[in-house]
Amino acid sequence: MSKIEQQNSKLKIIPLGGLEQIGMNITAFEYEDSIIVVDCGLAFPENDMLGIDLVIPDVTYLKDNIDKVKGFFITHGHEDHIGAIPYVLRDVNVPIYATKLTTALIEHKLEEHDMLKKTKRKVVKYGQHINIGCFRVEFIRTNHSIQDAAALAIYSPAGIVVHTGDFKVDYTPVFGDAIDLARFGEIGKKGVLAVMCDSTNAERSGFTLSEKSVGATLDHIFDEHRNQRIIIATFASNVDRVQQIINSAQKYGRKVAIEGRSMVSTINIASELGYLSLPDNILIEGEMLRNYPDEQTVIITTGSQGESMAALSRMANGTHRKISIKPNDMIIFSSSPIPGNEKSVTGVINELMRKGADVIFQDVHVSGHACREDIKLIYSLLHPKYCIPVHGEYKHLIAQAKIAEELGYSRDAIKILSSGDVLELDEESAEITGRVQVGNVMVDGLGVGDVGNIVIRDRQKLAEDGIIIVVMTLESVTGQVLAGPDIVSRGFVYVRNSESLMDEAQAVLNNTMEYCMERRITDWGKIKNMVKDALGDFVWKETKRRPMIMPIIMEV
Amino acid sequence: MSKIEQQNSKLKIIPLGGLEQIGMNITAFEYEDSIIVVDCGLAFPENDMLGIDLVIPDVTYLKDNIDKVKGFFITHGHEDHIGAIPYVLRDVNVPIYATKLTTALIEHKLEEHDMLKKTKRKVVKYGQHINIGCFRVEFIRTNHSIQDAAALAIYSPAGIVVHTGDFKVDYTPVFGDAIDLARFGEIGKKGVLAVMCDSTNAERSGFTLSEKSVGATLDHIFDEHRNQRIIIATFASNVDRVQQIINSAQKYGRKVAIEGRSMVSTINIASELGYLSLPDNILIEGEMLRNYPDEQTVIITTGSQGESMAALSRMANGTHRKISIKPNDMIIFSSSPIPGNEKSVTGVINELMRKGADVIFQDVHVSGHACREDIKLIYSLLHPKYCIPVHGEYKHLIAQAKIAEELGYSRDAIKILSSGDVLELDEESAEITGRVQVGNVMVDGLGVGDVGNIVIRDRQKLAEDGIIIVVMTLESVTGQVLAGPDIVSRGFVYVRNSESLMDEAQAVLNNTMEYCMERRITDWGKIKNMVKDALGDFVWKETKRRPMIMPIIMEV
Repeated sequence: MSKIEQQNSKLKIIPLGGLEQIGMNITAFEYEDSIIVVDCGLAFPENDMLGIDLVIPDVTYLKDNIDKVKGFFITHGHEDHIGAIPYVLRDVNVPIYATKLTTALIEHKLEEHDMLKKTKRKVVKYGQHINIGCFRVEFIRTNHSIQDAAALAIYSPAGIVVHTGDFKVDYTPVFGDAIDLARFGEIGKKGVLAVMCDSTNAERSGFTLSEKSVGATLDHIFDEHRNQRIIIATFASNVDRVQQIINSAQKYGRKVAIEGRSMVSTINIASELGYLSLPDNILIEGEMLRNYPDEQTVIITTGSQGESMAALSRMANGTHRKISIKPNDMIIFSSSPIPGNEKSVTGVINELMRKGADVIFQDVHVSGHACREDIKLIYSLLHPKYCIPVHGEYKHLIAQAKIAEELGYSRDAIKILSSGDVLELDEESAEITGRVQVGNVMVDGLGVGDVGNIVIRDRQKLAEDGIIIVVMTLESVTGQVLAGPDIVSRGFVYVRNSESLMDEAQAVLNNTMEYCMERRITDWGKIKNMVKDALGDFVWKETKRRPMIMPIIMEV
Repeated sequence: MSKIEQQNSKLKIIPLGGLEQIGMNITAFEYEDSIIVVDCGLAFPENDMLGIDLVIPDVTYLKDNIDKVKGFFITHGHEDHIGAIPYVLRDVNVPIYATKLTTALIEHKLEEHDMLKKTKRKVVKYGQHINIGCFRVEFIRTNHSIQDAAALAIYSPAGIVVHTGDFKVDYTPVFGDAIDLARFGEIGKKGVLAVMCDSTNAERSGFTLSEKSVGATLDHIFDEHRNQRIIIATFASNVDRVQQIINSAQKYGRKVAIEGRSMVSTINIASELGYLSLPDNILIEGEMLRNYPDEQTVIITTGSQGESMAALSRMANGTHRKISIKPNDMIIFSSSPIPGNEKSVTGVINELMRKGADVIFQDVHVSGHACREDIKLIYSLLHPKYCIPVHGEYKHLIAQAKIAEELGYSRDAIKILSSGDVLELDEESAEITGRVQVGNVMVDGLGVGDVGNIVIRDRQKLAEDGIIIVVMTLESVTGQVLAGPDIVSRGFVYVRNSESLMDEAQAVLNNTMEYCMERRITDWGKIKNMVKDALGDFVWKETKRRPMIMPIIMEV
C-alpha cells in the first residue's frame, strides 16, 4: 500500500450494540486491517422476550472479519460490559485486555463456562499503552460504582478517540485514586478526534456525589438504630459500598454476614486481590448469626432490585433458609431501582413492612455515572473535534447532545449513532457510510440464538390466551375419522367450570368434520385450516379470546 | 330488638379490596341489618396475570348478604373506584349514589355493558344527606384530578365515619370550589369515630400544588414554542387539565384536536354537563389538522402512560391513521408515570425523539392526592378517635400511620386493615373480629372469573418455555402403537434450526414406547407419565428448559 493511500484511510467506529438500550455495550474500531473491540456486554431481556434469560449482541461482523480482530478492551467489570464474553469468545477468540479486578471478574465468568484455558487475558495497568495492529490503546483511571474502571484513549493513524466507559468524577473515592483528570487534559492538548462519553445521567443536572458521602449516611443510620438488627441490600459488584458498610459495622461493634451467591463471590474476589479490607474476624457465616444479639449484627445481601430469586426477596417472602425478618429489623436499600424494576422493589418493601420491619429505601445511594456538569468537565478537558454520545437510551444520547451544543459544538460535530452504523472519520470529516449486521441474540437456558422472533411470538400468543389442541386419527386412504376429534386445552379456561363452552366447541368441531367427511375432503392441510377457522371463530364469539388453535391429524 | 341490644351494636367496616394494591377500592359498612358500600373499583392486572384484561373484587360477602345491601356510594369517577360496577351489579343490583359527573361516567360505562335500563342511579349534590337503612350519608366537596370528587360522612348509630375518597386540597381549583374544609371542621366538632384517609401520597412531604399551577406552566411552554406544533398527552379523565390546555390554546391562537377514544368520550360527557367550557370553534377534527399551519394547532391525546394501543404510542411508532410525528413537533407529557409504567413511557419518549420531536416529560403535572401536610390538615379538622389509612400499598398505609403517630395518636388508635378484615368499632373499642371472603376475580375478554390460578400458572409455564405435544394412536385392547408417537412443539425452539435436537427427542420417545410395548403396559395414564418424565429429563439435560409436555393418546 502506497503512502498516499495510507493517508486516505479513515477510522471506522462501529457500535455493535448498546445504543438502543441500557446494556449490551460493544463497539468495534477498525483501521485498515485492524479491528479492536471495546467491551462485550449483555442486556437483560425486555418484558416481551418471554422466557429469555439474557441477550447478547450479534457479532456476525466480527466473525466475518475474524482475521482483522486483534483483541477486546474492557472498560470495567459490570455485566453490561463483560457479560457476553463467554458467548462471543466461542466464535471470536482473541485476547482480552483489562485492569486487574475487571480481569478477575471476567476470569470468574470464563471459569463458570469452563473456558479459562482456551482464552487469553492480559492485565493492564492505568497509564499502560498496548500496541496492537494499527492501534495503540491507553488505559486511563476513572471512577465508577465498581473499582478499576478505565477510560480508553485509542490512538489510530486517523487520530485519537477517547472512550470514557461508564464513569463518574469522584474526588474522594473510597478505594484508590480519583479519576486521572490531568491525563485527560494532557491528551486533550495533543488533539482529540472524537470522544465517546457515557450518557446515562446526561439528563441530571449538577455533579454526581462522591461514593464517600454514602459512608457518612450509613454511619448516621448505624448510630440512630443501635438496638436493631440491620440488613442492607446493595449491588453485589459495588465493593466500595460493601467496604463502607463493613467500616460502619466495625465502628459500631457489629459482625457482618454476607448473603447471596453473587455478593459472596464478588467479595471473595475483591478481598483476595486487596480491593476490600476486612478487619479481623468481622465476617461471620449466616448460620452463626444466631450466636450474636441482633443489635450486634449486619447482613449485607443481594436483592436490592427486587429480583424474585435474590436473598432479600426470599427473606421477605419467608423462604430464606437461614434468615427470617423480625419486627424490629432495620432494612436498608442502598441502591435505587433500575428503570423497569420499580414495581418489584416496591413489592419487596411492602412484604418487609408487613413483617413489621422498618425499611429505608431512599437516600442511601449515589450514582456511578457522571451528571451534566461532570460531562462538561470531560469535554472541556478533551475538547474533541467530534462528540459521540454513548451508553444510554436515545433520550439520554439526545440529552448529552444538548450538553455538547451548550458547549458550542455544531450539530454536525455531534454524531448520534445507531447500533450497526459505520462511522468513518478523520480530521476532515465524520460520516455514516454504511451499516453492518447487528441484533439481539437471545439466550434461553443452554440455547444461544435458537429462540428467535417466531418462537417468542408463539410464547406471547400462548401467554395471552393459551392453546387449544385438536387431535384426530384418520384412515389414510378414505379420510374416515377413526378416533376423535378430541379437544384438549391449556391456559385457556378452567375446563371444569366451563363444561358447556367446551361441549359447544366439541359440537362445532364435530360439525366441521362431518362437513369434511361428506365432501370427502382428504387434504389434511385443508381440514386443519377449516378446524382452525371454525373453532377460532366460535371461541372469539363466545369469549373474545384468541388462543392458539393447533389441529393434529394422525394417519392410520 | 330492645334498646339495650341496640346500644350494644357496633359498626362493621369491611374492606373488600384496595388495601393490598393501588386500585380495586371497595368497602362495606355494616350496621345490624344494613350494608352500604363505598366505591366499586377495578385493578389493572399484575405482570404475572398473563392475558388478563382487568381485575375486579370478589363480592361473595355482598351476595351472601344481599338482603342487607342498600346501595353503592361512589366518591369519584376514576376506574379504580367505578370500574367494577358493571360486573358487580350483575349480582348485587342496588342503587348507586354519586355526584353528577361521577354518575354520568358510571352511566357511560353501564351503557357500554347494555345495563343502563336494569340499574338505578341517584345524583347527589354536595351537602346532601341520603338516609338509607341505619345509615345517613353526606357528600362533602373535595378536590382531585377529576371533578366532582366527594368525601363521605357516614353517620351510623355507632358514630360518624368520614371516608375521604381520593382527594387533594386545592385552594384555587380550575373548576368549581375548593374542598369544603369548613364542613370537615364542623363534622369534626360533632365528634368523629374514625377517618379513612387517602394514603397515596403519604410518603411525600409538604403540600400538593394546585392544579392551576399547571396552567401557568402550559402558558409558558406555549409562549416559548410559538413555531412548533404542540402535542400534549394527559389522563383522559383529567378534564381540568384539558380545560387548561384549551385555555392556553385559545390564548395563543391555536385550534385543538382531540385524539384517543377515552379522551373524546370524557370530553363529550364533561362539556355536555358544563364541566368544560369550550370557546366557539376551537375544536377541530383530527382530519382537519392539515388545513391549519402546524404552529396554529394543538393535539390533546391519550397515551401518557405509554399504553401500547393508545393514540400517542401509535403516533410514535408510525401507525396512527391521521397524525405522523414531524421533526419540529413539541410533545408534552402532562402526567407522571404510574408505578410499573416507567419503561413503556420511556420507550414512547425514545421513539418520539428518534422521529426528531422535542419532548418535555417532567414538571407539567401535579398530583391529585394529598401530601403529608394536607393529610395532617384533614386529621386536625376531624380529630377522629380512630385512624384507618386507605388507598395505597402497604408502605403507603404505614406512611400515613406514621403521620398519625406524629399527630399524637397511639398505635392502638391506628388500624391498618387488610382486605377481608372485619373491623368492629364504636366509642369504646375498635377490633378486628373476623374475616370475610375476598380476592381477585380476573376478567379476560368476556370471561369473568373463568380464568383462575390454574389457568394462569399454565399460561406462565407456556410463556416461559413453550409446549411439546406428543400424540399417538394406540389399539384400544392390545395397546399396539398404530400411529405416532409424533412430536409437535410451539414456543420451545425454532424447529428448523434444531433438527438434531428434535430427532434425538423422537428417539427418546420411541425408546420409551418400545419399553412400554415390551412390558405390555396398557394403562394410558402410566404411559403418559413415562413419556412426560423421559422427554422432560432429556429436554432439561439438553436445553435447561422446562416446556410443558403434553402426551395425548388416541384409542382406535
